[in-house]
Amino acid sequence: MRHEQRSPADPLTALLDRVRVRLRDLDDGEPASYIPELSRVDPDLFGLSLCALDGQVYGSGDTRVPFTVQSVSKPFVFALALADRGLPEVLARVGAEPSGEAFNSIRLEPGTGRPPNPMVNAGAIVTSSLVAGDTPEARSTRILDGLAAFAGRPLDIDEAVYASERATGDRNRALAYLMHNAGWLTGDVEEQLGVYFRQCSVLVTCDDLAVMHATLAGGGVNPVTGRRVVAPRHAQHVLAVMATCGMYDASGQWMLKVGMPAKSGVSGAIGVALPGQFGIGVFSPPLEEKGNSVRGIAACHLLSDQFGLHLMRAVDPQRRPLPPRSLHGTPLRSLRHRPRAQRAALEAHPDRIRVHVLQGDLDFATAEQTLRVAHELAPDTGWFVLDLTRVGRVEPVAADLLRALGTDLRGRGARMVLADPDARQALSRPADEFPDLGRALETCEDDLLTSVGLDPDAPVPLSVCDLFGRADERLRPALAEAFDTLHLAAGESVEPPAAARLGDRIVLWYVESGRLAVCADAAGAVSPLRTWSAGPGAALTPADFPARLARQVLAERDTACRTLTAAALARMRTRVPEAVAFLERAPLEGAETVHRP
Amino acid sequence: MRHEQRSPADPLTALLDRVRVRLRDLDDGEPASYIPELSRVDPDLFGLSLCALDGQVYGSGDTRVPFTVQSVSKPFVFALALADRGLPEVLARVGAEPSGEAFNSIRLEPGTGRPPNPMVNAGAIVTSSLVAGDTPEARSTRILDGLAAFAGRPLDIDEAVYASERATGDRNRALAYLMHNAGWLTGDVEEQLGVYFRQCSVLVTCDDLAVMHATLAGGGVNPVTGRRVVAPRHAQHVLAVMATCGMYDASGQWMLKVGMPAKSGVSGAIGVALPGQFGIGVFSPPLEEKGNSVRGIAACHLLSDQFGLHLMRAVDPQRRPLPPRSLHGTPLRSLRHRPRAQRAALEAHPDRIRVHVLQGDLDFATAEQTLRVAHELAPDTGWFVLDLTRVGRVEPVAADLLRALGTDLRGRGARMVLADPDARQALSRPADEFPDLGRALETCEDDLLTSVGLDPDAPVPLSVCDLFGRADERLRPALAEAFDTLHLAAGESVEPPAAARLGDRIVLWYVESGRLAVCADAAGAVSPLRTWSAGPGAALTPADFPARLARQVLAERDTACRTLTAAALARMRTRVPEAVAFLERAPLEGAETVHRP
Repeated sequence: MRHEQRSPADPLTALLDRVRVRLRDLDDGEPASYIPELSRVDPDLFGLSLCALDGQVYGSGDTRVPFTVQSVSKPFVFALALADRGLPEVLARVGAEPSGEAFNSIRLEPGTGRPPNPMVNAGAIVTSSLVAGDTPEARSTRILDGLAAFAGRPLDIDEAVYASERATGDRNRALAYLMHNAGWLTGDVEEQLGVYFRQCSVLVTCDDLAVMHATLAGGGVNPVTGRRVVAPRHAQHVLAVMATCGMYDASGQWMLKVGMPAKSGVSGAIGVALPGQFGIGVFSPPLEEKGNSVRGIAACHLLSDQFGLHLMRAVDPQRRPLPPRSLHGTPLRSLRHRPRAQRAALEAHPDRIRVHVLQGDLDFATAEQTLRVAHELAPDTGWFVLDLTRVGRVEPVAADLLRALGTDLRGRGARMVLADPDARQALSRPADEFPDLGRALETCEDDLLTSVGLDPDAPVPLSVCDLFGRADERLRPALAEAFDTLHLAAGESVEPPAAARLGDRIVLWYVESGRLAVCADAAGAVSPLRTWSAGPGAALTPADFPARLARQVLAERDTACRTLTAAALARMRTRVPEAVAFLERAPLEGAETVHRP
Repeated sequence: MRHEQRSPADPLTALLDRVRVRLRDLDDGEPASYIPELSRVDPDLFGLSLCALDGQVYGSGDTRVPFTVQSVSKPFVFALALADRGLPEVLARVGAEPSGEAFNSIRLEPGTGRPPNPMVNAGAIVTSSLVAGDTPEARSTRILDGLAAFAGRPLDIDEAVYASERATGDRNRALAYLMHNAGWLTGDVEEQLGVYFRQCSVLVTCDDLAVMHATLAGGGVNPVTGRRVVAPRHAQHVLAVMATCGMYDASGQWMLKVGMPAKSGVSGAIGVALPGQFGIGVFSPPLEEKGNSVRGIAACHLLSDQFGLHLMRAVDPQRRPLPPRSLHGTPLRSLRHRPRAQRAALEAHPDRIRVHVLQGDLDFATAEQTLRVAHELAPDTGWFVLDLTRVGRVEPVAADLLRALGTDLRGRGARMVLADPDARQALSRPADEFPDLGRALETCEDDLLTSVGLDPDAPVPLSVCDLFGRADERLRPALAEAFDTLHLAAGESVEPPAAARLGDRIVLWYVESGRLAVCADAAGAVSPLRTWSAGPGAALTPADFPARLARQVLAERDTACRTLTAAALARMRTRVPEAVAFLERAPLEGAETVHRP
């Protein structure tokens, strides 16, 4: 599962391959030389990994060669310190401002001597002292375990590198003593430096870096293990500080040209996280003069340019597709079979129900447009139906604005109604919610009918309907007698009339009370599950049961139907031919109910 | 049009009102005092404006009170310099690194003396010298016109403020001379300072700031005038530099806590741009010690927190709604009426056509999941149909990945087929594109049938179909004679059978050649326009023309039909009752064709 590489044919792997092959001959720079362990590395090693937020890892080249994590540990230990102490306590000891200086700068905040941010050595030494643990050993264990949780596998320490780092770390030692003197670093300086040097000596691979950064990009949940490592707000804090301080004194240029939060280390590693999208790890030891991997930087530039991944990417509003559609009037009626009086009442109030169809992700811009449409509704609009069946993600700001709209509409005597198969509860407080547009519309129509004095649920026995309205009194008993009676309990379902044969089937269904719904096949569910419904007074012919869309007839309530079979019709044809002739001329769809006692 | 405020009932205005009312009593800080014009301002002035990318301006409070733009001009003059000189030439004269220092810092780049970035005074003096114009007057005019283009209305200069700025600008003068000495600023120093001081003295309102920042957020197009002011890449560059350097020595904290590119000025203004979403202007003169508006900062914090607007917002992958659905097999057949032989052939190859339904915006993550599904297709899959009918925006990275997928599939002998009503041409190169899923599926099925030796378009005259397959030779002439012939030219349409009456309608349609499609009402278009289609060999009953989904029957090609009316059936019932009995027993749907010579 984990770290299983895709075959070369996979387009995303092929894409990483192309980036790597294109940059393979870029041979500027030298591996770090301040300790022998780093200078001895093969400069041709080059790996490029990407981890998607569903945990899939793609890689090209030397993606499983271990190297020491070095400064790429800093964002993750910062995250652990935030988890263990919270933002205010961490910020009290280390700033969050870009210093405009190199990774090993001895510049501390003027006046206070506080380290400027957790991405330079000074700040990282302080943050590693802030993770939970009473002893240096406990803090080291917490850090190793924490990095392993980010990577999704157990990690080890390169003891030789650790020994070398410790032996040659004069500059860091000086920084630590300065900060100890100013009070930002507490406890034994040498012991605390030990924790920091061990943190830098943890062995990871390029694949590990991709998973670790995907964990930050995904709000703190490791996409491979599914385990939450830090809270969403702490992942957000880390990404923000990476964005402004991650690339040391090249952070501004990095945001300008690459536009994704990143962190580099002297072993030749760069990690990148694009919020909500993916994590990337690059490994290539030769460094430029600022201490960043030459090929690593080039790879990030290439990926950002080619794929438009820049966080500040300019979005041309004229290229936004699919403006939301706003619908009202007759075309928007539900597919409920209604008697004529009900249809007439709905047609008399075409603007009282208004539907707004949205598509794509719901962000500020879409929500704002929706608010504007709602604000310009006709004064007599009583129902504003938002069709969310084609919507993807809902941003928090959009949910807030739509909730505010629901409240606002209620204040104006109107109702917000949602058609949302995902039942996004965040939105539903001031609104009524239905799983599809059909049910939302039917409910609005029922409410509208009730408001004008019609009861859409009142039973309409066959004896008082107008199916036989103008039929001779002599014909009526024969007509009524020809019908069978069918009682269905709520939840019960029957086969639709077999549309395939002209004979031997029900040719007319009349609903006296309750509600029938016709459903398409659930399997596949490309078409909506529920095609239409019918209430009291509806007369249905086989044409109302299209074979592909009506696989099941379901009683949504206790329902009483009267049915006329082809056989009964044939018998009646022989016995009372005038009655059949009458019935064949009758306008069946939406027969008007005539309430006769 | 422009600057027309919404009524107080508008939910977005109400929201801005609430933010403003909540912060109105926050009375820390003092207005800038270095010149009398700024110190004399009413400290209670407080305006908050938001401009959406469709040009709608929302405002609360003192949104139309003019004030001098001061440092909020810097991003826009940087944008004009980029437009006039290009990024490399501008970066050659001014850096892009946060300085970690105050707005009026005299710190220049160690060694070179180059100004660190265009958001501090030193850098802004250089960028204003880089806009097009041979003389200081020409550059001043270019800047005033450029700021007006960002604001969408003519702007003026406050000459009194300009005179005061010029008289008291010692520190800026010192900076300018230092940079002139180092060679970064060329020409006459006093004249160039004049251009810069005039730029700072341009009068704008809070509404103007919202529109100006919305222009950056929208990729350089002013959403009110619709005019492009700068190129998308230059808007992106400006937002990136604002993100890392816009808030001076508080830029890191700003990214940590607010997470939107912003710029503040000593007149008490703050401008904010959220890429692809909106621009915000805040105006409240009292400043904190770093020179930023106290209420302005608080308003931005509140808006970011309450609405989750932070660019690094942690996205929990477990909360991503609507995983894409992947469908195959029988439930996924198109709604084309096909003869039995064709249906049997399709059922024999359930996995050769695969449909992947996407919903929401298409970003890296969605595209990656799609690639994975495509990579795991059964080896005999010949058609991979992407249903984009519910997709909103398509990010460039997703378009690139899907194009790569199309090429990859072609290399594997399969075809990528798109169902996309928006005809996003960016995607269509290596794929076939259809306006809806139905047509995409029908075409794949036709291709599949052709590949197994069946011609779905070959005519099937009534005389060789199996409608009468087992009928007595004696009955066949009577049966065939009862049918009328109906020829339709491509594009011609007819009414569907009137489903409302049992009598006097066509009870059976048989398609001999060509293609019929049944379309729902176009007006409203909640349901798809094209419900189903039928080719040679299809036999259709009224149940195939559901009243609400079949408003029109359209011949998509020259089509020959045979039709049987209820009247003809009744006549036949009298004359050849056995034939009627036979027909009433016949399995009509998808009658198998029997090719007899």
